[in-house]
Amino acid sequence: MQQVNLGMIGGGTVGSGVFHALSQNGDLMAARLGVKLAFRKIAVKAFDEPRPYPIARALMTTDWQEVVNDPQIHVVIELVGGTGIAKTMVLAALAQGKTVVTANKALISACGPELFVAAAKSGANLYYEASVCGGIPIIKSLREGFVANQFPAMYGIVNGTCNYILTRMKLEGADFAAVLADAQKQGYAETPPDLDIDGIDAQHKTGILASLAHGFWVDHHQIHTEGIREVSKIDMQFVEKLGYTIKLLGIVKKVESGKQKAEIQASVYPALIPSTHVLANVNQVFNAVFVRGDVVGDTLFYGRGAGKDATASAVLSDVADAALDLKNGTKSRVQPFVAHAKNGRVVPLDEIVSQYYVRFTVVDKPGVLAKIAAIFGAAKIGISSVIQPEGHEGESVPLILMIHDAPNAVMRKALAKIAKLPFVKAKPVMFRVEPLN
Amino acid sequence: MQQVNLGMIGGGTVGSGVFHALSQNGDLMAARLGVKLAFRKIAVKAFDEPRPYPIARALMTTDWQEVVNDPQIHVVIELVGGTGIAKTMVLAALAQGKTVVTANKALISACGPELFVAAAKSGANLYYEASVCGGIPIIKSLREGFVANQFPAMYGIVNGTCNYILTRMKLEGADFAAVLADAQKQGYAETPPDLDIDGIDAQHKTGILASLAHGFWVDHHQIHTEGIREVSKIDMQFVEKLGYTIKLLGIVKKVESGKQKAEIQASVYPALIPSTHVLANVNQVFNAVFVRGDVVGDTLFYGRGAGKDATASAVLSDVADAALDLKNGTKSRVQPFVAHAKNGRVVPLDEIVSQYYVRFTVVDKPGVLAKIAAIFGAAKIGISSVIQPEGHEGESVPLILMIHDAPNAVMRKALAKIAKLPFVKAKPVMFRVEPLN
Repeated sequence: MQQVNLGMIGGGTVGSGVFHALSQNGDLMAARLGVKLAFRKIAVKAFDEPRPYPIARALMTTDWQEVVNDPQIHVVIELVGGTGIAKTMVLAALAQGKTVVTANKALISACGPELFVAAAKSGANLYYEASVCGGIPIIKSLREGFVANQFPAMYGIVNGTCNYILTRMKLEGADFAAVLADAQKQGYAETPPDLDIDGIDAQHKTGILASLAHGFWVDHHQIHTEGIREVSKIDMQFVEKLGYTIKLLGIVKKVESGKQKAEIQASVYPALIPSTHVLANVNQVFNAVFVRGDVVGDTLFYGRGAGKDATASAVLSDVADAALDLKNGTKSRVQPFVAHAKNGRVVPLDEIVSQYYVRFTVVDKPGVLAKIAAIFGAAKIGISSVIQPEGHEGESVPLILMIHDAPNAVMRKALAKIAKLPFVKAKPVMFRVEPLN
Repeated sequence: MQQVNLGMIGGGTVGSGVFHALSQNGDLMAARLGVKLAFRKIAVKAFDEPRPYPIARALMTTDWQEVVNDPQIHVVIELVGGTGIAKTMVLAALAQGKTVVTANKALISACGPELFVAAAKSGANLYYEASVCGGIPIIKSLREGFVANQFPAMYGIVNGTCNYILTRMKLEGADFAAVLADAQKQGYAETPPDLDIDGIDAQHKTGILASLAHGFWVDHHQIHTEGIREVSKIDMQFVEKLGYTIKLLGIVKKVESGKQKAEIQASVYPALIPSTHVLANVNQVFNAVFVRGDVVGDTLFYGRGAGKDATASAVLSDVADAALDLKNGTKSRVQPFVAHAKNGRVVPLDEIVSQYYVRFTVVDKPGVLAKIAAIFGAAKIGISSVIQPEGHEGESVPLILMIHDAPNAVMRKALAKIAKLPFVKAKPVMFRVEPLN
């Protein structure tokens, strides 16, 4: 049986997970694929760094160039992360004609097009299934399983840390800060937690999904991004009574437009979704991507978005594809990215029409609602319902409005005006509503 | 750009769906794949049979052999269904060296191994993504996305008709017969409905999933199958109060066993699953497969399991793989089936240990529970809880028992004994519980 030799850069948590999974299931993979996969060299930070599974000492090196330059290594797995040295490593491996498998969402999101050119130039391939939603085969599904589809809408719960925190806030009625602190203690959130909590990690993944779905590369700077710091216990409780659940979503939607086909919304923000929807029942650290195809209809993919084992599963599925490519002499069977939309454009969020949940903190006296409604009315923003929750007494009380379709810029300006009214006692809280219909 | 010519046998609902989807998105597919896909001939029952989308008259023939024998057709799509003439057609196409794409679950389930041999013999390939769960790319995910995994457990909601009926029974508190009649009126259930309602359709799909996951062909006759006729309104309501939802599941589980690795349970039956689980929130006609991989962990795939469009999406993804195979000269890159488990065995359900929900209809008098408990005790079956629902008065009342792990044969015999007790006034109702943990 033919053998494909693997090199890996990164021997920490995920790296040792990949090594372990191949040790466990390598024979099974060989039987399924008709190709034997064998590690030849693994570059690590230090031989004795702590890792959840051991790595054979004889395979280790501390010099990543040994991996990239080994002529007997066919496929290089990059698990270093970030856009610095990892980029140098990936480019070096591609330049040697080696196919690269990476889990590096930041690198693919920021430098995808440059890497794809490098891959094409050297006749190698570049696989990155593990960069989005860990073990979920979402990239394979989008570009192979749904190859016959356009994608009117995608909504992804793509950050496990945020979903864990939001789930616990909902189920326990707990505060954001308390749950975050506990999540850090338990290893579900990093310190500092900003990359996750502020939506940056979700932004990278959303950019990759948007690009694959719509055929032009979506730079992550084009993605309007809000994290979950503004989600409070009180709003969690109010929206639940209204039949909604708050989730941090990566959102990629076609914008209705007569002119151009590839005009899309690409955003990351916490949104209200109907609690009965299957996406609202994705809890704890799990990820899910709800994909609407114009042919296939509504679909959803669910699984662990991170962790040594789930990520290892995705890395090894890419390795398997790379190995079949080598076996068959077809390195570019499925290209890393096909730019099929010539005039793709991310529409700024200001121009996007959304629905909204708004909570004001107002003085409890007659005439307040009328004045708020007047400002919305002047901006041509329709109010679909008004809720004054019971059991709140005192100087300031909550006033909740559900708002019909309105462009984000119009809504933003109206809220700024309302915030200045004398009887409005706190910054208005606003979340968008995604009915998923 | 290279062109791959398609022939199709079957121009009804699904066939016209495939034709329509390729008309709509054919240019997009060509851009993504680097191969143009073009229909050359479509064999239909009658030129003017009713179909949801029109098919170009010039492509139609009523002679399927014209499709199979056309030397310019590279890929044949079979949408006839059943194990009769469809088998002849598939074998004829394979014999001509043409790759076949089929949505025919009955044929693959019953005759898979024979067809795979025929494909290997002629150097062609055989794709069948659309045979299980319509638009959900479950077969691609199992054998490619999860190639690095063993599969300790899979639970599939694989029949849309049954899920539609069970969902409405739960949400509306309606009777099975009433919902079935309405489903038939609305086109969600066939007349007669037996293939769906009695679990036969689910059995075929479960057999295919079990085979792919465990590497030996699981004949559908080996799959213990119960349909949903026994699910009643009253049990729907009782289990809901206990925190469960009843779903018809295709179940494929590794059986713990020291001796052999590929010993599995493969069954179809209505089961209680926790209502908070994402699988319990798969409603209406939607399908879903919950897959547990030993590396990837818990995952779920959700989407439409039938219908012209969802099925077309899956058929065209197979066509795309077949086209890439032809473009690259690699017809057997991913084989139709890899038999990697030499000693695979489906363990008879009698030997399988399950948990149970049992409802007895008993005379309301002292000592009844003691006598039932004595029979279970003698059979070494542990009772985990007893529920006597309130608000039931009269000669006969319901008595519900939740039962610990017990082999199915032991349970069956104990229930038969209890059924003969004089104070037991109706056949005991039993459903298995799948905690999904």
